[in-house]
Amino acid sequence: MHTQTLEFRSDNCGRVAPEIIEAISRANHGSAIGYGADDLTLQLNMRVSEIFETQVRVFPIPTGTGANALALASVGTPFGAVFCSPEAHINTSECNAVGFFGSGLKVTPIDGIHGKVCPDSLEKNLHSAGFGQAHKSQPVAVNLVQATYLGAVYSVAEIQRISALAREKNLTVHMDGARFANALAYLGCTPAEMTWKSGVDILSLGVTKNGGLLSDAIVVFNPAVADKINFHLRRGGMIWSKMRFASAQILAYVENDLWLRLAKQSNLAAQQLAAGINNIPGARLIAPVQANELFAEMRAQSLDQLAQHGVLFYRRGPELARFVCRWETTEEEVQSLLSLIAQHA
Amino acid sequence: MHTQTLEFRSDNCGRVAPEIIEAISRANHGSAIGYGADDLTLQLNMRVSEIFETQVRVFPIPTGTGANALALASVGTPFGAVFCSPEAHINTSECNAVGFFGSGLKVTPIDGIHGKVCPDSLEKNLHSAGFGQAHKSQPVAVNLVQATYLGAVYSVAEIQRISALAREKNLTVHMDGARFANALAYLGCTPAEMTWKSGVDILSLGVTKNGGLLSDAIVVFNPAVADKINFHLRRGGMIWSKMRFASAQILAYVENDLWLRLAKQSNLAAQQLAAGINNIPGARLIAPVQANELFAEMRAQSLDQLAQHGVLFYRRGPELARFVCRWETTEEEVQSLLSLIAQHA
Amino acid sequence: MHTQTLEFRSDNCGRVAPEIIEAISRANHGSAIGYGADDLTLQLNMRVSEIFETQVRVFPIPTGTGANALALASVGTPFGAVFCSPEAHINTSECNAVGFFGSGLKVTPIDGIHGKVCPDSLEKNLHSAGFGQAHKSQPVAVNLVQATYLGAVYSVAEIQRISALAREKNLTVHMDGARFANALAYLGCTPAEMTWKSGVDILSLGVTKNGGLLSDAIVVFNPAVADKINFHLRRGGMIWSKMRFASAQILAYVENDLWLRLAKQSNLAAQQLAAGINNIPGARLIAPVQANELFAEMRAQSLDQLAQHGVLFYRRGPELARFVCRWETTEEEVQSLLSLIAQHA
Amino acid sequence: MHTQTLEFRSDNCGRVAPEIIEAISRANHGSAIGYGADDLTLQLNMRVSEIFETQVRVFPIPTGTGANALALASVGTPFGAVFCSPEAHINTSECNAVGFFGSGLKVTPIDGIHGKVCPDSLEKNLHSAGFGQAHKSQPVAVNLVQATYLGAVYSVAEIQRISALAREKNLTVHMDGARFANALAYLGCTPAEMTWKSGVDILSLGVTKNGGLLSDAIVVFNPAVADKINFHLRRGGMIWSKMRFASAQILAYVENDLWLRLAKQSNLAAQQLAAGINNIPGARLIAPVQANELFAEMRAQSLDQLAQHGVLFYRRGPELARFVCRWETTEEEVQSLLSLIAQHA
Repeated sequence: MHTQTLEFRSDNCGRVAPEIIEAISRANHGSAIGYGADDLTLQLNMRVSEIFETQVRVFPIPTGTGANALALASVGTPFGAVFCSPEAHINTSECNAVGFFGSGLKVTPIDGIHGKVCPDSLEKNLHSAGFGQAHKSQPVAVNLVQATYLGAVYSVAEIQRISALAREKNLTVHMDGARFANALAYLGCTPAEMTWKSGVDILSLGVTKNGGLLSDAIVVFNPAVADKINFHLRRGGMIWSKMRFASAQILAYVENDLWLRLAKQSNLAAQQLAAGINNIPGARLIAPVQANELFAEMRAQSLDQLAQHGVLFYRRGPELARFVCRWETTEEEVQSLLSLIAQHA
Repeated sequence: MHTQTLEFRSDNCGRVAPEIIEAISRANHGSAIGYGADDLTLQLNMRVSEIFETQVRVFPIPTGTGANALALASVGTPFGAVFCSPEAHINTSECNAVGFFGSGLKVTPIDGIHGKVCPDSLEKNLHSAGFGQAHKSQPVAVNLVQATYLGAVYSVAEIQRISALAREKNLTVHMDGARFANALAYLGCTPAEMTWKSGVDILSLGVTKNGGLLSDAIVVFNPAVADKINFHLRRGGMIWSKMRFASAQILAYVENDLWLRLAKQSNLAAQQLAAGINNIPGARLIAPVQANELFAEMRAQSLDQLAQHGVLFYRRGPELARFVCRWETTEEEVQSLLSLIAQHA
Repeated sequence: MHTQTLEFRSDNCGRVAPEIIEAISRANHGSAIGYGADDLTLQLNMRVSEIFETQVRVFPIPTGTGANALALASVGTPFGAVFCSPEAHINTSECNAVGFFGSGLKVTPIDGIHGKVCPDSLEKNLHSAGFGQAHKSQPVAVNLVQATYLGAVYSVAEIQRISALAREKNLTVHMDGARFANALAYLGCTPAEMTWKSGVDILSLGVTKNGGLLSDAIVVFNPAVADKINFHLRRGGMIWSKMRFASAQILAYVENDLWLRLAKQSNLAAQQLAAGINNIPGARLIAPVQANELFAEMRAQSLDQLAQHGVLFYRRGPELARFVCRWETTEEEVQSLLSLIAQHA
Repeated sequence: MHTQTLEFRSDNCGRVAPEIIEAISRANHGSAIGYGADDLTLQLNMRVSEIFETQVRVFPIPTGTGANALALASVGTPFGAVFCSPEAHINTSECNAVGFFGSGLKVTPIDGIHGKVCPDSLEKNLHSAGFGQAHKSQPVAVNLVQATYLGAVYSVAEIQRISALAREKNLTVHMDGARFANALAYLGCTPAEMTWKSGVDILSLGVTKNGGLLSDAIVVFNPAVADKINFHLRRGGMIWSKMRFASAQILAYVENDLWLRLAKQSNLAAQQLAAGINNIPGARLIAPVQANELFAEMRAQSLDQLAQHGVLFYRRGPELARFVCRWETTEEEVQSLLSLIAQHA
């Protein structure tokens, strides 16, 4: 029997990139005004604006759930509806946060595969939505998870097509970028191309899952929205008084391509794992592996045995395993997992 | 004219205690399950239970506003009312967080001095509250800020008297302990005596203002409340996935009496400042100085001159200044401020 | 061309039963205390308790949307989920009322046919719901529309099976009885058998669509729920000060079997219409006709021609018509509609 | 001992004006489209527009609490604050409706006498409100109760002064007109002068207390607000499907000056009662009597004896009685009450 533990549960089980902790230490001198009026937060706004090639507003925020719910609440109305994939995190895993922050704002899953919103389905739902009819929740936003929960990545063309449909009906396009850097690394495009140049209005920029500590961020491309967000954040208990220490983290995350470097590592580990699984007859990947997550079908007994041999992972069905690679997942760990799968599948 | 800057704006303008950053680094190894099921969070619960001499539940939470609003929402009902001092932070400075988290939960200020709830006023308001009448907001909680916004500290006897009144009518007693350690250091009693032994049901434990980084905590003494809090936290976007790094901070904060050591430093600086101001004819303190805040009246012109000479502080009226001492405020800074006041008052 | 108008749009397009207006006039003497403490409201509670063969609480309420949302909010929690049919009124036609009254309470459609919740689907969803996991909306209620939006009626056995599944997991069973009397008339059972004896905890008792004026009612079988409802109603602006005039209407509605007499009339008209349509080759009913609604498929051109000939009805798709019979729909109107369908289908 | 009962509790204890019930009967023919798209609702909008000398939108709504909360929610933001008198109905008697409908919208009482908002107090509060500061609830509306809860009436000049202050800071002016007709009858001005010509943006038009049945109304002078109200109403369960029967009532209420005739009757009764009380040494009115309510101070023992002799009224303190006259209060009833007061005061 095993003695070693192999961690493939989630990217939030992992460590913090040392650069991010160092940034906190570096910021820890002198005094600074609170609640985001400090110099580091100003720097953060300027730096992210450079990186996104347009003037943006950046709001560090403790969690991705908070970022998603608050972003949607601030662009929506309490009688609105947000279209998303059935597998979207806002639909499956954030308790009732969108409805809570949005005062009843409804999450409406629509068809799609691999965790994506399907443009045709969006078009059909927009057509039958009943705009202007008071008994119908009024569509106000579409939520794209990039990369999706199932590990797939929207192409720039897909984002553009969805945004164009949304724009016709005045819907806001929200990107849940919990794994934004992983998607960016996969596509090889610029941050601007994957967001506002393709019609994205507001972004939940994930940091935590990719080497962050305790802060993600909202990035606003539409200035009209930004003004009210500060009030929503405050009412939601989401503005740190010692904001400079959060801003320092996000700055370190985007500086020197750290976010891309970390994401490339977890993407690479996932690619190696996927390639290996594809060669094992008893295992089958159910979605393209384009970021750092894999969903593999095997016999239930095989999964039981992986667990008994120390592999930490989540089961999404009796015969369905999710494996997540982290920025610090090693090739050795991948090989160990592949050996165990080959042995038991 | 001056060149030096003297920081007396707020305790959230200050630095993080090095022990707290070190604790993050120490926690940064291996992997751990997310969302609070990890070992460090378990340790935190056990350690704080020891310190409070009873089984408690501890929930690290990003901000004090979140802690207050969520604590009150979780014990209240959407048709309830929370009594507090007019100067309570929930009434003056947290946007509409209590009403938001509590789905309309009403904040009802009642009379008192130095930022305290006055027991007689509480009794009178409870008497005329209209319990059971559907058109009246139903009293569900009383909020005590310890230390108060004006820098005063409730005695244990005062807390007990208020709790006894609350208990008679089934109200929950919530303590906003944004400056809990400062009050504890002042009273010299045990954490248990200042809380559950005196009838407090739930505590917002402030860390940020006293050397913390980006986390405060909710401490629950009433187990019936604790079970639902996790859901409220999640719905509110308040549960970090990498919780171990928040728990590590709070652990470091209460370990080895760090919280008391830091609080004693800022209290002492405030005492020195108060003693000095009391000797200056043109300046007058408007509340007892029992924690680390001072409110001093001077001529408007004097305050203008302090500002011109580099003193950073907030004006709470044309002739009213607030000075806040931090854990790292030095005696030299206090003396410099006193010289400037003496010179210009 | 046709000049006559044939009204088949909705049962809310119709008249008020004269008995209900007379009851208002009869109640209009002397004075009475407001907000539901009056004698007529007391009588209403006693009379409905007799009819349902158990002690109930009755709350007249302006609308069915209000009744549904408030009933669910009062039994649910803000982190809860309500299972319902995709065609349930709370899901399709009440804007975001459940989420609003329930502070984020989520509406979760699950599979079923003819507008019903399918017990197998309920069982499957309960199995995978993630009870106790904070990131999952916690199932708290199941909503049954009786009769369904598609004109079908749950049998007593179906209600019992669903209730039994719900009970195992501590879910509340809510019946949306917008067309309660129609279902009752169809089944021929007692009100008690169709509700609490089969596990229903709380009922939205529809009056408006079946000859009522401006009031429906909530009927509570579970006394633990009733106490808080009054506060939810008041906070929701749903308690009339001159309540006696609403109670008088509901009393008249259930007195002398008026509700059943009216429902039998609209059910009969629907039966006649269904029988006729079944004999017309170009038309097809898509659901059993058990109450007063029919959904018929025909060529789009046929539907256009019906509209041009003065038939008022709603299209639920290019080739799908909904016809609704009212308590005052005459056999002559039914025959006229059938002639037109036969002519154009 | 006295055996007769004298009803002076509230204007909602009274009867419905026969004209209003007749209007329901008159409307009860044929069919009509639901939810407010019918002819009677259109007529109502046109007729009220004529009466107010400008294009308005009228939304019948079940209760005054609903009208107030929804009006304020639709103009406010969830981080807003509404200034009002401490005696305003939204502050004292509507549970947490404003906070609920407004998703946390805060009710902030400010000083004033006789139930009015004092312009100087408003100015002072606006000055210190902290516009643009995220930790402060942002003032969005001022609420004027016309006539006030204490029976006083704002002059047109007072309304104008308050509106001018509000306008400077982009606040909406909301009039709670639960006793609008009483105030109008007292002032003798036009409806337009008392509302939009003096800066009022949105009005809760009370009907119930002045001979109505089960409907009040929201009247919107600012078209930008009106579009969204329908959605708020629907989400709030406040739109009757058989709207024509509500609109018929409001139409009858404003037609042929019925509202003024009824209000003049209750005002006159109150004047007679006030004149009588002014001549009784042991009784003292605490506010000007300008509408149909009186607040009289007497010895507690006197009030006990009135109650024992069959006078129905509410005590607002041990020595404070509220007497309310209704449209059907007779001179004989007034004289009977005065005799009893004279005898026992």
